[in-house]
Amino acid sequence: MGTKVVALCGGVGGAKLAYGLSHVLPPEELSIIVNTGDDFEHFGLSICPDIDTVMYTLADLAHEGQGWGRADEQWTTMDEIERLGGETWFKLGDRDIALHLLRTQSLASGASLTAVSAQLAKRFGIRHAVLPMSNDPVRTMVETNEGELAFQDYFVRRRCEPTVCALRYAGAEQASLSPEVLRALENDNLRGVIICPSNPYLSIAPILAVADLRERLKKLSAPVLAVSPIVGGHALKGPAAKMMAELGAHGGAFDIARMYGDFIDALFVDSRDAVLERQRNDADPQLLFGDIVMTSRDQRISLARKCLSHLDYLRK
Amino acid sequence: MGTKVVALCGGVGGAKLAYGLSHVLPPEELSIIVNTGDDFEHFGLSICPDIDTVMYTLADLAHEGQGWGRADEQWTTMDEIERLGGETWFKLGDRDIALHLLRTQSLASGASLTAVSAQLAKRFGIRHAVLPMSNDPVRTMVETNEGELAFQDYFVRRRCEPTVCALRYAGAEQASLSPEVLRALENDNLRGVIICPSNPYLSIAPILAVADLRERLKKLSAPVLAVSPIVGGHALKGPAAKMMAELGAHGGAFDIARMYGDFIDALFVDSRDAVLERQRNDADPQLLFGDIVMTSRDQRISLARKCLSHLDYLRK
Repeated sequence: MGTKVVALCGGVGGAKLAYGLSHVLPPEELSIIVNTGDDFEHFGLSICPDIDTVMYTLADLAHEGQGWGRADEQWTTMDEIERLGGETWFKLGDRDIALHLLRTQSLASGASLTAVSAQLAKRFGIRHAVLPMSNDPVRTMVETNEGELAFQDYFVRRRCEPTVCALRYAGAEQASLSPEVLRALENDNLRGVIICPSNPYLSIAPILAVADLRERLKKLSAPVLAVSPIVGGHALKGPAAKMMAELGAHGGAFDIARMYGDFIDALFVDSRDAVLERQRNDADPQLLFGDIVMTSRDQRISLARKCLSHLDYLRK
Repeated sequence: MGTKVVALCGGVGGAKLAYGLSHVLPPEELSIIVNTGDDFEHFGLSICPDIDTVMYTLADLAHEGQGWGRADEQWTTMDEIERLGGETWFKLGDRDIALHLLRTQSLASGASLTAVSAQLAKRFGIRHAVLPMSNDPVRTMVETNEGELAFQDYFVRRRCEPTVCALRYAGAEQASLSPEVLRALENDNLRGVIICPSNPYLSIAPILAVADLRERLKKLSAPVLAVSPIVGGHALKGPAAKMMAELGAHGGAFDIARMYGDFIDALFVDSRDAVLERQRNDADPQLLFGDIVMTSRDQRISLARKCLSHLDYLRK
């Protein structure tokens, strides 16, 4: 029986590393645990933005620059919604809608989000396990200077403009990790856990909040490696740096080390942040340096290989 | 204050006469009461096929030959659903989906079907009242030689192939006519009621079944005129004649007179069925003959004018 790598990820950045890992590891050796904290209902459709991004990315269907949705997309329905005076702040492509309709139908028929995601992933030709963190609803709520906003209201409708005061993962305390997630983590041959370069507050924290996964990772004998989503003080994508500043952190990769310090063995940081080594105390996790930016598909695969070799190094 | 004409209708045939009436009468003088017995939920969307057909027809957006949906339509979502292995028996065009999404969203927010329909009709530029028969769910169930089928299962998925034994309008007994429908019927200046040439079992009977509308029509002092959906023994569209035969009627226009006999003052029949006059007993409603086939838009308007003049004749 082979080893098992578990990756925790959110949307774009995390999905790229998941893509790399899926090209390096056979299906039975990788489980990708995906954040569902930004899931929501819109027009009655059950939408799972991070699961969708991971699936579209693994299936080579994702729109590259845009950060969401599909590359080959049509907009007839959205144009008609606009013509009829409906809400257009959340863009739904025609092909994307097909996925949401199928998911909505399957969930309504009583299937779990895990089963629905597995079925959809299979239809996209994805052979690696894409696992929602939980079958129970968890909803990221953003407390801002304008009051509490549901995640998509903050993220898409308000374009992350309000100042963030705090975050809350509604439902996380009552939610269970799915049996598939538990099985992956409890694998006797766990090679290690990789925290993908996703937003720590919006993508990783909701996963860690479910059923005390954070505590579970602390006790894990296998190594846990995080890849920094911050390079040179900037988030590669999205509002991570802005949120970190608003929440009182410096907005640098070292903040990530402090945020994850209690459960990771090492943080993989970009070489251009080598100066961070000087800030490190003995209590801080180990820092590993290298090129972590994934611009090309080759870089995704190359970063995946480096992560695996770091895991094996940490394991010794 | 002007007079008021109330039209009862289902899909295609009825919608054509409603179109004609809407071009002859000002908005305040016409209320179109539409069957909702074939409404259903599919992929989580709230779909109202007859209301949609009436709106698309009035807005000059309906596909002519097809009998459902829009003329200018795209199929990206449906193609993707098919590619992903989903159900394709009920065709959902991209623009059509926009309407279903908006309706689903508004209903979920607590608006009544009447309010939602009024809002949508307005967005389509429709000025005449398109009134769902009820805000309460009524679902036509078809008892067949293969067991009971939900209406769309019988009508679309099974293409009306099973033999019909009986029909049931689930929910009709508990349902109320909407306040807007009641107001239209209780108008002191009611010029009359027109039963459009729609399927008597599938389109008209569900409306008549709600809150004993049939009894209400019997007691009406204003005239009630029905337009035959059967010409020369054939339904102009749909399974009416097949169903009539299966349910023990002869399948001719005269059966319509017998089915509606207790609450209509006259049946408007095509001239080529003039022979029917010979079958008529004194107890049967009056038969009025003329060209009732609506192939062109002009014929819709011309039939509407004839219906109005028949109403005024019956009123004397």
